[in-house]
Amino acid sequence: LSSLYRTSRLGAAQRKATRFISSIESDKYLFESVVQINQAHVIMLRRRRIIRLQDARKVLRALAQLRIMARPPDAEDVHVAIEDAVTRRAGKLAAGNLQFAKSRNDQVAAAIRMHLRSEVLHIMDSLIGLLRTLQITIRKHHRTLMIGRTHLQPAEPITYGHYLLAFHDEILRDFERLEELYARLNLSPMGACALAGTSIPIDRKMVATLLGFDGLVENSMDAVGSRDFALEFLADMTQLAVDIGRLAEDFVFYSTPEVGQLRLPNDLSFTSSIMPQKKNPDVIELIRARSAIPVGALIKSTTILHSLPTSYNLDMQEITPDLWITSGAMQDVISMLRTLISRIEPRPVEVGRADLVTTTATETANVLVTHLGVPFRLAHQIVASAASDFSKMRSKQADLWPELVLRKVRARLRGRSSSIETTLAHVANPEAVVSRKKSLGSPAPKETLRLLKTRATSLRQISSRQLGRKRRLESAKRRLQQEAARLVR
Amino acid sequence: LSSLYRTSRLGAAQRKATRFISSIESDKYLFESVVQINQAHVIMLRRRRIIRLQDARKVLRALAQLRIMARPPDAEDVHVAIEDAVTRRAGKLAAGNLQFAKSRNDQVAAAIRMHLRSEVLHIMDSLIGLLRTLQITIRKHHRTLMIGRTHLQPAEPITYGHYLLAFHDEILRDFERLEELYARLNLSPMGACALAGTSIPIDRKMVATLLGFDGLVENSMDAVGSRDFALEFLADMTQLAVDIGRLAEDFVFYSTPEVGQLRLPNDLSFTSSIMPQKKNPDVIELIRARSAIPVGALIKSTTILHSLPTSYNLDMQEITPDLWITSGAMQDVISMLRTLISRIEPRPVEVGRADLVTTTATETANVLVTHLGVPFRLAHQIVASAASDFSKMRSKQADLWPELVLRKVRARLRGRSSSIETTLAHVANPEAVVSRKKSLGSPAPKETLRLLKTRATSLRQISSRQLGRKRRLESAKRRLQQEAARLVR
Amino acid sequence: LSSLYRTSRLGAAQRKATRFISSIESDKYLFESVVQINQAHVIMLRRRRIIRLQDARKVLRALAQLRIMARPPDAEDVHVAIEDAVTRRAGKLAAGNLQFAKSRNDQVAAAIRMHLRSEVLHIMDSLIGLLRTLQITIRKHHRTLMIGRTHLQPAEPITYGHYLLAFHDEILRDFERLEELYARLNLSPMGACALAGTSIPIDRKMVATLLGFDGLVENSMDAVGSRDFALEFLADMTQLAVDIGRLAEDFVFYSTPEVGQLRLPNDLSFTSSIMPQKKNPDVIELIRARSAIPVGALIKSTTILHSLPTSYNLDMQEITPDLWITSGAMQDVISMLRTLISRIEPRPVEVGRADLVTTTATETANVLVTHLGVPFRLAHQIVASAASDFSKMRSKQADLWPELVLRKVRARLRGRSSSIETTLAHVANPEAVVSRKKSLGSPAPKETLRLLKTRATSLRQISSRQLGRKRRLESAKRRLQQEAARLVR
Amino acid sequence: LSSLYRTSRLGAAQRKATRFISSIESDKYLFESVVQINQAHVIMLRRRRIIRLQDARKVLRALAQLRIMARPPDAEDVHVAIEDAVTRRAGKLAAGNLQFAKSRNDQVAAAIRMHLRSEVLHIMDSLIGLLRTLQITIRKHHRTLMIGRTHLQPAEPITYGHYLLAFHDEILRDFERLEELYARLNLSPMGACALAGTSIPIDRKMVATLLGFDGLVENSMDAVGSRDFALEFLADMTQLAVDIGRLAEDFVFYSTPEVGQLRLPNDLSFTSSIMPQKKNPDVIELIRARSAIPVGALIKSTTILHSLPTSYNLDMQEITPDLWITSGAMQDVISMLRTLISRIEPRPVEVGRADLVTTTATETANVLVTHLGVPFRLAHQIVASAASDFSKMRSKQADLWPELVLRKVRARLRGRSSSIETTLAHVANPEAVVSRKKSLGSPAPKETLRLLKTRATSLRQISSRQLGRKRRLESAKRRLQQEAARLVR
Repeated sequence: LSSLYRTSRLGAAQRKATRFISSIESDKYLFESVVQINQAHVIMLRRRRIIRLQDARKVLRALAQLRIMARPPDAEDVHVAIEDAVTRRAGKLAAGNLQFAKSRNDQVAAAIRMHLRSEVLHIMDSLIGLLRTLQITIRKHHRTLMIGRTHLQPAEPITYGHYLLAFHDEILRDFERLEELYARLNLSPMGACALAGTSIPIDRKMVATLLGFDGLVENSMDAVGSRDFALEFLADMTQLAVDIGRLAEDFVFYSTPEVGQLRLPNDLSFTSSIMPQKKNPDVIELIRARSAIPVGALIKSTTILHSLPTSYNLDMQEITPDLWITSGAMQDVISMLRTLISRIEPRPVEVGRADLVTTTATETANVLVTHLGVPFRLAHQIVASAASDFSKMRSKQADLWPELVLRKVRARLRGRSSSIETTLAHVANPEAVVSRKKSLGSPAPKETLRLLKTRATSLRQISSRQLGRKRRLESAKRRLQQEAARLVR
Repeated sequence: LSSLYRTSRLGAAQRKATRFISSIESDKYLFESVVQINQAHVIMLRRRRIIRLQDARKVLRALAQLRIMARPPDAEDVHVAIEDAVTRRAGKLAAGNLQFAKSRNDQVAAAIRMHLRSEVLHIMDSLIGLLRTLQITIRKHHRTLMIGRTHLQPAEPITYGHYLLAFHDEILRDFERLEELYARLNLSPMGACALAGTSIPIDRKMVATLLGFDGLVENSMDAVGSRDFALEFLADMTQLAVDIGRLAEDFVFYSTPEVGQLRLPNDLSFTSSIMPQKKNPDVIELIRARSAIPVGALIKSTTILHSLPTSYNLDMQEITPDLWITSGAMQDVISMLRTLISRIEPRPVEVGRADLVTTTATETANVLVTHLGVPFRLAHQIVASAASDFSKMRSKQADLWPELVLRKVRARLRGRSSSIETTLAHVANPEAVVSRKKSLGSPAPKETLRLLKTRATSLRQISSRQLGRKRRLESAKRRLQQEAARLVR
Repeated sequence: LSSLYRTSRLGAAQRKATRFISSIESDKYLFESVVQINQAHVIMLRRRRIIRLQDARKVLRALAQLRIMARPPDAEDVHVAIEDAVTRRAGKLAAGNLQFAKSRNDQVAAAIRMHLRSEVLHIMDSLIGLLRTLQITIRKHHRTLMIGRTHLQPAEPITYGHYLLAFHDEILRDFERLEELYARLNLSPMGACALAGTSIPIDRKMVATLLGFDGLVENSMDAVGSRDFALEFLADMTQLAVDIGRLAEDFVFYSTPEVGQLRLPNDLSFTSSIMPQKKNPDVIELIRARSAIPVGALIKSTTILHSLPTSYNLDMQEITPDLWITSGAMQDVISMLRTLISRIEPRPVEVGRADLVTTTATETANVLVTHLGVPFRLAHQIVASAASDFSKMRSKQADLWPELVLRKVRARLRGRSSSIETTLAHVANPEAVVSRKKSLGSPAPKETLRLLKTRATSLRQISSRQLGRKRRLESAKRRLQQEAARLVR
Repeated sequence: LSSLYRTSRLGAAQRKATRFISSIESDKYLFESVVQINQAHVIMLRRRRIIRLQDARKVLRALAQLRIMARPPDAEDVHVAIEDAVTRRAGKLAAGNLQFAKSRNDQVAAAIRMHLRSEVLHIMDSLIGLLRTLQITIRKHHRTLMIGRTHLQPAEPITYGHYLLAFHDEILRDFERLEELYARLNLSPMGACALAGTSIPIDRKMVATLLGFDGLVENSMDAVGSRDFALEFLADMTQLAVDIGRLAEDFVFYSTPEVGQLRLPNDLSFTSSIMPQKKNPDVIELIRARSAIPVGALIKSTTILHSLPTSYNLDMQEITPDLWITSGAMQDVISMLRTLISRIEPRPVEVGRADLVTTTATETANVLVTHLGVPFRLAHQIVASAASDFSKMRSKQADLWPELVLRKVRARLRGRSSSIETTLAHVANPEAVVSRKKSLGSPAPKETLRLLKTRATSLRQISSRQLGRKRRLESAKRRLQQEAARLVR
């Protein structure tokens, strides 16, 4: 097929070499975009009177047929395949100008951007869905007691809603990054031709508008030679994956029987071929593992681009499939995670557990400061000393804890402890500690509800912006087909 | 020193273990920020009447002295070191509330954000300088002929100005990404305490304002546990490094005697200990090599964060030094690159070189279309056939090229070639080809100048936004010291 | 299908979840190995009298049928699929012991090792082929003059054979690493069961022998939980890819018309859709680009394994497909590279080129030392000064070079230069310089031939070891089927 | 200083450029090796009668003084610094041949190999120490009950000794890889000169022997241009780090109070500035985090080498410091880990815990097969059904488990259960399950002891090989100084 280009210059290519460089397998993702680019290009050429009406018509008719075509076998790439197919349908004369003032270099850059913008929009849709599920779950569990951890050790009591809100806000930032990427991505390289533009009086803006782009990549070498949008996409996916992977790590830990913070539904669990008692979090583990896909793709692509000469090199072709693999994997992961979050059940912490009562120690120290007027560092030391004793006793009685503290207080602050006994008992309850929190962003249920309200507003706003982007693309797509149809008539 | 915290709970730590976990070496970058955070925290505690005036005064005086202090030896970290130093100066009673309603976890997150925002601003300043140098050089060389390449093979004639403009626009996008990062970076985590906020009625917004932050990381677990700003910074640096590395790769290639496109000044070149004739582009090679620093840091950090439990873990401490190493390296690289671009001299291509004359082939095919009305694909084949013959002849005479084309035209299109001979000779000149370019973003000198004008405007706008950011920080810094001084008086 | 395992414990799984965790697509690579493992396990169970003869027969017959089966749709994985298929054929009673004293965990580890060892052997075969082609090409070109470079600048004359020998020796080390990997890879984990072995008196060594393993991974947790062989394979592939990528980078550079060191055959070149004169090294660029595949896979896999709990976790399933992708890609790359090396033609450097004559400068300095007795550093300075002048003159006459040197010698070493004029003229010839080399490993043609002889011996040795490995596997495979057939009879 | 080389060719270098390319900071690691290389080179030059005795003496005396010198300021690199210092001491005439038939390119490659071999030996020593500690600990705890896990869920009972043995065997393989690397690393590139050897009749083997190398990197371009030994080292460190990181991940998990499998000593624990009860595993977290250092260095270095032209390029200079950083970090990590393993205490699992009793389910199914003759898949289903009921009851009574199984057995296998009641009760004990294990490599204490015996032998063998390597190096070092002294006398 590539005889269109090479016969006069190089003769036939070695079959093995053609197969080695062929991108046709992965080009299936670009097929629709390349057809549209050809339509827009022909419409523009005709409007600028660069080609004859009858030729434009023949080519547009052929392209209209192609839109439903299966891809041709064994072509070097989708560009050759389409030019060849159009030539067979519209004849050499009419089709001979299909690639006039246009190159594979700008065309492939444009097609990748078009398919990638659609993938990015899918991911953004998935993230909006995930945020919605998170907001529902956070509201439902804004009072559900949970043990917050640092260094994986029990730290302070929080709520499951508060915990999920931290994740929600990370995902919100991940969404923001994609919006910013989209603005850099949805720009047209068409008209840059091979790398140096053309002397033919084409209209780059018209083509851009017909294809739904919001603007141009102006400099012609930049247009064909830069792939920063690809690296930025993979870096954004890597960040998203890290955020998701950390939640998955938590969920694996929280689902162990010893910790027992989360209960995984049976129909999302799997068992063992040999160990009959097993209930394994396979789904969560694969969410965690698949979150390594973007970083692999990022490194592969960075390695390819690092110290690659400026402008177009075929090396860049090797990056493209990783965009689709990464995008597909992350859409699956987000969707599975959304199901998981809506189905997994937190087990509220039993308030009287002796092994968790010392998570109230910080608040205990706080009340020594506020009630007895001792400096915090001293209060910290007093409570630390009680914690040390409590730990050595390995008692199963939570009640012992405030008692131990009181004893330490009496020993260190004679005469000042009278008033504090009740308070100590009160704050030795994780639930009480949570509801006493006052600072902005704290796990106090009221505060969680307040923050949730602002997040609901944000979600409405990003949903509306997202709708705008999708509508603009759809209407551009419609208009392109209308223009094509009008010319053909 | 760490006896402040641990004596009552754990007793003394093993010396080797303390050394192993100590971050004090790298904490020197955070020292100033941590002092400021302590100042702001104490001012807020006093304004909210949480601590006594006399205690606030003593602590603020101690902190004022600390601002000029060398760091104390052998402390676990900067936070312990400062609390200890303040305690020695202000006494246990006053200093005992320095860490009240505050934790190392929110403090270290705040300090990293403060130092990183300042590094990001330095990099942005460097990039503005680089953009300025680029704009000057582009203007100077908007007519300097150069051979554009794809696949490293000669492709079409362009200008050195047009070539640099592609790089300029990549750097502009790199700058944009840093602006977007800055908005997510300059938010205060202070008041999140360990991970769960506090019951003490602190004012997080006041502290944020005193420290020059533009807002808050609201959710308290998000505030202490997320490091997406670090990954985003490293990803942005990786992208910038890839862009710079590709230019460096070009420059190494263009400086070879065979290609001879660029002449490296002697005082930026280095020679060999054994080969007397050598003039090596060591500087360019190290610009290229150092552009691998960010990706190493990014992978190290991603590996650390991947599947790390939510909220604070000490693992994150290992990420921080890589931020400073990467930032420092990139500032050096940008600065060296700026010098290089202002000093390196393009050698204009000799117009009559036989080995480069076929870079006019595309325009030759174009004029066959516009003058003879043949379809482009046919014109392409005719010229390709001429190119094949020309290549086989390995002639040193550029004049032969248009002649060969004419012969092919006559053979394929009898009777239609009469008018085209002069045009063919005209477009067989790379300089003529460049000036014939008409499309938006093409290398035509006029178009380069037009684009340059819009870039000058962009540069003014980003410089002004940059100035705004820097002024806001400086004025916050000034106000913080004034507030501290007022309280002490 | 997975009802075999889960009904009694967890009930049905969500369809979406099953699809999400399913490895069936990639398990096609493991199918044959898993069937063999089952055969070996059943034979061993019977020989140890753990199962009844009639059951063993039924199961072995079913497995024999399975060897030609297409994989069943929608199973969780290949292990379930095979147990299910055997159960349908052999009945619940006989098939019910197929997984007795055996788990998916040891089985999957064994199957990956079996398929990977076969992939490693394929790659080793390809490398042997490449080494053979290299040795032929080196012999052919052990006198073909070429300019050696450092910093990409012309350095000293060498030969194309000497240049390729450096690459040959790198590939030889890559081969060595694979031999060392093979010894760690070809060990059997079978019998480790889930992670803790079994109380059933199985014979692990018998199973290992039946499957062609050279030994055992003894500790049962190590057997199911370690994947260092996977990382080691990907690291070895990364190293190989770096070696190949550097050669490809050279070849792209050497194929530019300005450098013109190598001539790419037309049928391995590709052209442009728009630029008729283009002859692009697409094949070499993709060899270079695809050499980034292993490092992406390595990072993805390292990220998955980093801080993964000991013993089996489902995350490891996500590593497996990357082994096959990497192996396939590298086999293609090696094969294409071999074709390329046998077809690409070096253009011997024209000896009289003025821009390359100064590559003789080191030898010029050497003769000043040996003939005039000046210290080398002084000789270096004298010749450097001549090189500086020569460079400024930008002369096209190579003859000027020895003359300039002579002039400098006379200026610095009055009266001593009489004897040296002829020698200077002689060594100003790159060809002469090459043949004067005396040190071990130098580009002197005689030395290249000498080294080649030792490499031919190495190649015979590694080929014979390779043959041994392959024969051992084949004979084990044959014996396994014979044993199975004997039992069934 | 670099005026030695450049004055005659390029004039002075820009100060900023010199600083930018200077490697002097990191060259401190190479100083000793470069001095030795110079000594060996001079001795060889003299023995081959290439230089005069009096010159050799002067230079060797200067080098002897240099061995105790602090490095000179502001030199481009260590090579220039040393030549300059020798020149100042020995005079231009004598020192002028120091770099005769020698280049910075072969010298730096040799010096890196020499320092790296010594770092590799240090790491191997540390690993031998770690293996020794592991063997002691394994012996001590070959009966200490522990719950083995897959998917982080309780799986089957094992022992702490068996668990550590899996890690031990991974480390043993890491050691093996370093031994194999050492054989490729300890080869001399000296005599390759710039890249093309020399016409001077040097003796490469003599220099290699004097420097303790076991052989040569023969081909001269390979000698100066390859850095596969660096990548291989970083890949080996990455593998080691992954192995260590997984253990650290386990230890963090096992130290949580809920899991409580390991008890971290107080003096290796750290606490919180705000939460008085905290006992954090900071040391383990940093072992885990620092295990990400090698992979960052590996990627940085791979990125630098990927598509770098063959032979010497300055880019490679940027790889060297990462070797020392990685080596130092891993030595610290191994040493800290060794302390940790010798100090951390396993808490034996309480045998009667209801939440762990079902880890005996596999053995329960086994006895149904062996005692009642049912097929394993049916036994699995019966026990699974009991496990499902037991899980729903959330009982705290472990005794209930065998009872429930018995009930299921009776329901499914009427009349066959009479004999099994006692056996079921017996195997419902994790300790009993462990001691019933029979397979090679299982956690049965006897088997652990048996394997330990073979490991003790391995340790003796590798220690003895290690001793051999170190002695050979030391004796070479001694001989070099003796030879130098003899010449000077």
